[in-house]
Amino acid sequence: MATYQQTVYIRTSGRRTYEITQEIARIVQASDIRVGLCNIFVTHTSCSVMINENADPSVQHDLNHYLNRLVPENDPEYTHIFEGADDMPAHIKNVLLPVSLGIPIMDGHLALGTWQGIFLWEHRTIPHQRRLIVTLIGD
Amino acid sequence: MATYQQTVYIRTSGRRTYEITQEIARIVQASDIRVGLCNIFVTHTSCSVMINENADPSVQHDLNHYLNRLVPENDPEYTHIFEGADDMPAHIKNVLLPVSLGIPIMDGHLALGTWQGIFLWEHRTIPHQRRLIVTLIGD
Amino acid sequence: MATYQQTVYIRTSGRRTYEITQEIARIVQASDIRVGLCNIFVTHTSCSVMINENADPSVQHDLNHYLNRLVPENDPEYTHIFEGADDMPAHIKNVLLPVSLGIPIMDGHLALGTWQGIFLWEHRTIPHQRRLIVTLIGD
Repeated sequence: MATYQQTVYIRTSGRRTYEITQEIARIVQASDIRVGLCNIFVTHTSCSVMINENADPSVQHDLNHYLNRLVPENDPEYTHIFEGADDMPAHIKNVLLPVSLGIPIMDGHLALGTWQGIFLWEHRTIPHQRRLIVTLIGD
Repeated sequence: MATYQQTVYIRTSGRRTYEITQEIARIVQASDIRVGLCNIFVTHTSCSVMINENADPSVQHDLNHYLNRLVPENDPEYTHIFEGADDMPAHIKNVLLPVSLGIPIMDGHLALGTWQGIFLWEHRTIPHQRRLIVTLIGD
Repeated sequence: MATYQQTVYIRTSGRRTYEITQEIARIVQASDIRVGLCNIFVTHTSCSVMINENADPSVQHDLNHYLNRLVPENDPEYTHIFEGADDMPAHIKNVLLPVSLGIPIMDGHLALGTWQGIFLWEHRTIPHQRRLIVTLIGD
């Protein structure tokens, strides 16, 4: 049994999903862990980490559109408004979507399904450098 | 410390929740792990795994009704529509609900509360065989 | 490698978020684990555990307001109504928000970002004592 931990930085440029499957897969391969768990954690309150279909770009388009409609900007009932129109919606999206994901490691690889990709979901408009902590535990 | 990993297949027949508490409990008991964590991961982008009340069927009824209303079929703003009316709603439900759950193991058993059951939540209409990976780490 | 498990009880008095970062940090420090994972699990079907901004109280205010509007009381389509107006909304909030969180441990501390705090989110109106199980695995 061993632990393996690495910090990953991802640059974002606006509200959308960014696929990070390869960045995470490389960490799993570097770790030499064959069976166990991979935890991905975002250290921010205005972006998320999630898994969904990575084959057809229209899925990502519709996910972004749906989420922006579910959590709109300029809602007159928001009181936390001094950091811009995208600030409080970003905090709400951060609680509705995962900040942390546990993915199994099997045969030395992330045990993702055929259509599953891992995404960082940026909820802020201006560019950010996002920090993710990847922690592996296993044999 | 040890890891223990097992794949579970669940057959579904339409959009609803399917209790899988016993299937997962049997894996924990087979593992001989007394204290640690049990991770359940679905390898699909159109179903979910979740925990909620398993005593009164009206709770499951209302959860299904609420979710289908929150994420309706035939939304005119969806662009990913060629796989059927239930396809894009299934992807959205997959990001709003967990694909991965971490449950503590205590005294050799899942440490669920009195009213908690584990469910696979199928978001597609046609029957599917769903693959879940259960990974245990502990002593 | 070691596991460390502790049960935490939190008293709540109504529907809102309660910060529990210090309670969890103390458990991590008591464990002597330097690198690994901390899992927090709520053993209930009507409260949640989540991470969000803990600096400006207006964020917590708006999160509560948004969630209560997204999942209203007295929805005429609920059928599970005999335990009070806050009961079925509490179950729905319990599935939309996490029951379980995995947080990395780095250098012997929770690796939270600058603005991240851990909260218990109570969805019921009357006072409750809530039970959380904290499980640490690492070196």
